[in-house]
Amino acid sequence: MISVEEAIKIILGVTPKGNIEELPLAAVAGRVTASDWVTDADIPPFDRVMMDGVALKYEGINSGNVKFKISEIQRAGEEPKILTDENTCIEIMTGAVCPIGADTVIQYEQLTIVNGFCTFDTEKIRQGQNIQWKGRDKNKGEVVLKSGTLIGPAETGVAASIGQHRVKVKSLARVHIISTGDELVEIYTTPKPHQIRRSNVYALSHLLSTFLINAFTSHLGDDISEIKIGLQNALENSDVVIITGGVSKGKFDHVPDVLKELGVEKLFHKIAQKPGKPFWFGTKGDKVVFALPGNPVSSYLCAVRYILPWLRQSIGQDPFKSYTAILQGEFNYNPSLTHFLQVKLEWSDAGELLAIPQPGGGSGDYLNLVNADAFLEIPANSSGFAKDGMLFKTFPYREF
Amino acid sequence: MISVEEAIKIILGVTPKGNIEELPLAAVAGRVTASDWVTDADIPPFDRVMMDGVALKYEGINSGNVKFKISEIQRAGEEPKILTDENTCIEIMTGAVCPIGADTVIQYEQLTIVNGFCTFDTEKIRQGQNIQWKGRDKNKGEVVLKSGTLIGPAETGVAASIGQHRVKVKSLARVHIISTGDELVEIYTTPKPHQIRRSNVYALSHLLSTFLINAFTSHLGDDISEIKIGLQNALENSDVVIITGGVSKGKFDHVPDVLKELGVEKLFHKIAQKPGKPFWFGTKGDKVVFALPGNPVSSYLCAVRYILPWLRQSIGQDPFKSYTAILQGEFNYNPSLTHFLQVKLEWSDAGELLAIPQPGGGSGDYLNLVNADAFLEIPANSSGFAKDGMLFKTFPYREF
Repeated sequence: MISVEEAIKIILGVTPKGNIEELPLAAVAGRVTASDWVTDADIPPFDRVMMDGVALKYEGINSGNVKFKISEIQRAGEEPKILTDENTCIEIMTGAVCPIGADTVIQYEQLTIVNGFCTFDTEKIRQGQNIQWKGRDKNKGEVVLKSGTLIGPAETGVAASIGQHRVKVKSLARVHIISTGDELVEIYTTPKPHQIRRSNVYALSHLLSTFLINAFTSHLGDDISEIKIGLQNALENSDVVIITGGVSKGKFDHVPDVLKELGVEKLFHKIAQKPGKPFWFGTKGDKVVFALPGNPVSSYLCAVRYILPWLRQSIGQDPFKSYTAILQGEFNYNPSLTHFLQVKLEWSDAGELLAIPQPGGGSGDYLNLVNADAFLEIPANSSGFAKDGMLFKTFPYREF
Repeated sequence: MISVEEAIKIILGVTPKGNIEELPLAAVAGRVTASDWVTDADIPPFDRVMMDGVALKYEGINSGNVKFKISEIQRAGEEPKILTDENTCIEIMTGAVCPIGADTVIQYEQLTIVNGFCTFDTEKIRQGQNIQWKGRDKNKGEVVLKSGTLIGPAETGVAASIGQHRVKVKSLARVHIISTGDELVEIYTTPKPHQIRRSNVYALSHLLSTFLINAFTSHLGDDISEIKIGLQNALENSDVVIITGGVSKGKFDHVPDVLKELGVEKLFHKIAQKPGKPFWFGTKGDKVVFALPGNPVSSYLCAVRYILPWLRQSIGQDPFKSYTAILQGEFNYNPSLTHFLQVKLEWSDAGELLAIPQPGGGSGDYLNLVNADAFLEIPANSSGFAKDGMLFKTFPYREF
C-alpha cells in the first residue's frame, strides 16, 4: 500500500506521446493550443477612430482656430479620406480609419454643430485623442498567444481577429470506461432484488465530458474469458482504459490477473486512502490503465483526484489547480489513511474559500455526492483530528 | 444614463416563460432539472455486502464459536443463499446480497482460512459490520434530487442508479448573435487596410457555449433596410437577440431606431460604466434584445456581467455567483463610472481569492482579455481610488 503522494507521483510519471490535430475555430472551445498564434497584421491594423465625432489637425487648434467646417463624412469600413486644410474637419465614426492628415478626434459629446460648422472647448482637447494608432497593441508577426494555452472565449475572439480560423490543438486521449460485475444491469431496466443499475460509467463519462472527452463505455461480467477479450479490445482501441470494480480481494475480482496476462505492467495496487483503497494502476507501452474500486464514491474520488490530473497533464496543462479551503467544523478520521471528506464550497464576503463538511452516510452513500462540490484532502499521519479553521487542499468536481 | 445596479435590476426583471423538455440522460450534462427525482426502490435495494469475506450469524460468535465452516459461496448478482447454521458461514463478495439469516460480514483481512474453516479475533467483530442495510440511505419513493438542480457528474450517477434514463430539463434560450458594421469581414479573409475581422460573435458564441447554448450568428452591414430585415428575422426566430455595434452616437448607428420601429421597447440605453457605456436593452413580448457596443472588450464585459446572469436566471439558477476577491495593488479610475478592471485570479495558500490587475492598454486593447480571468467591479461614487487589499466582486469569464 502506497501513500497518496507516491500514487500521484507514479501516475504523473507516465506521460503520453501527445498528438496534435488541426480543427476549425468553432470546434476548439476549451481545447489547448499546440502552436503559437502570430498576428498577420498590426493591431490595430490602421489608425483607428475610437469615438463618433470629427477628425481634424491639432495644428489648427494650435493656430487659434475655434470653428471648423465639416467637409465630409468618413464611415467605418471606408478607405481613408484626405484632410489637407487645418480649418476643416471630417465627420468620423467609431471604427473608421482616421483620415490621412488628421491626428485628433473630438467626440460628439464635446461638440456643438451649427450649420455645418463645429465648435468646442479647445482647452479640453489633447492632440491624438480618441485614436488608437496602428500597431499600438501588437506589430505584425508578434506572438499574441503561446502554444499550450487553454482556449477560452477571449482566446476565441483573438483567434478570429487575427484570422486563425483553423487551430492546431493538442489531441485528447481516447478513453474507454468499462464497468464490471454480474450484479449490474442497464439503467432502463428494473433490477431484480439482488441487482443494481450500472451508474459509475455514467458519472465518470459525464466527469470526462467536462474535460471534452467523449468516452466509449462498455460492460463486462465477472467471467475471466469475457474480461480478457473485453480488456484486450479496449487496450487496442484506446489510449486510456478505466475499469470500475473487480480489483479487490474477492474470489471473482479477476481484473488484476487478466491485466497482468495481457501484458499490462502494474505500477501500484492499493493506496492508503479512504475511500478508494483498492485502486490499481498500470501501463502497457503508451496505454494507461486505471482500475478503480466498484464503490461509486470510491471510483468517483479516484477519477477526480488521479485521472483528471493525468488527463490535464496529457495536454500540457498543470495537473492540479491549487484550491486551498478553510475547514468549517471538525472531523475525526483514521490517522493511518488520507481521508477525502465530501465538502460544500462557499465564498465568504472576505474573499475566503470555506469548506463545509457533508459527510453523509460515509463511502457507501453515493447519493450524498450531490450534496457536496468537492473532496477535501486530510492527510494521513497526523493526529486523526482535523480542527475547525484548518487549511486543506480541495478537489472540486463541479462549478461552485 | 443609469447605474450598473439599476441596469441589472431591469434586466433581471424580465423573466422568460421557461419551457421544459425531456431528453436522454446522456444529453443532459450541465442542464437543470425540471422535476424532482424519486427513487424507484430502496437505496440500497437489498442488504448489501460492503467487503469481500464471509457472512455469518453474530449469535454464533455470541455462543462462543471460534471456528466456522465455509459452506458455500455467494457471488454479487446472485440470489441470496440461506444460512441456517450458526456454526457455518458463507463466503461472500462485495456487492452481493447478504445471505438470508446472516447479519455480520467479516472481511478477508480479519480472517485465517485453513481447510475450508475460518477463524478470526472475535473481539474485533461488531454485529452488523460491513453490511449496508436495505433502505439505509433512502426509501422507495423518496426525493433524491429537487427540481431546479444543475446536473453535474454526481447527479448523472444518481440518475443512472435510480433508472432516470430520460430527464426533464429546463429549455435553453434560442439565441441569435448579430454583428453589425461595414468595416467587418469574415475571419478566413484578409481584411483591406481599413477593415477588421468580425471577432465579437466568435467570442460571444464561445462564451454562451460554456452555458451549453449553441447560438446562431449572422452579420448585418450599416444599411437601415438590411438591419431592419435582419433584426425582424432574428426576433421571429429566437428568444434572445444579441447585437454588437451600431448603438452609439454615430451617423450610421441605426440599431436603436430600427429596434424601436420593430416594436422593441427600450428599457434603457447607456450605463454609467467603463467599458460598455452605450449598452442598449429592450424587450418585445417575451423576446429580449441586448444591443452591445462594438468594442470587443465592451461587448465581452456586457455579456459576462449582464447576459450570463439573465441566462442563468432564465433556467431558474442563481443569476450571480458571489466571488469576492482581494485586490492586489491599487487602481485610479473615474469616480463617476463603475469601473470593470481586468484581473487575473489566484488562490493564496491561506484560502483567499486574490485579484491581480491586468489593465493592459485599456478598453481598446482586446488582446489583453487573454491575460485576465475576470472583471473586477469597482463601484462608481467612491473616491476614484481603489486601495490594495480592498474587497470587490469579480465576474470570472473562465476557469481559474
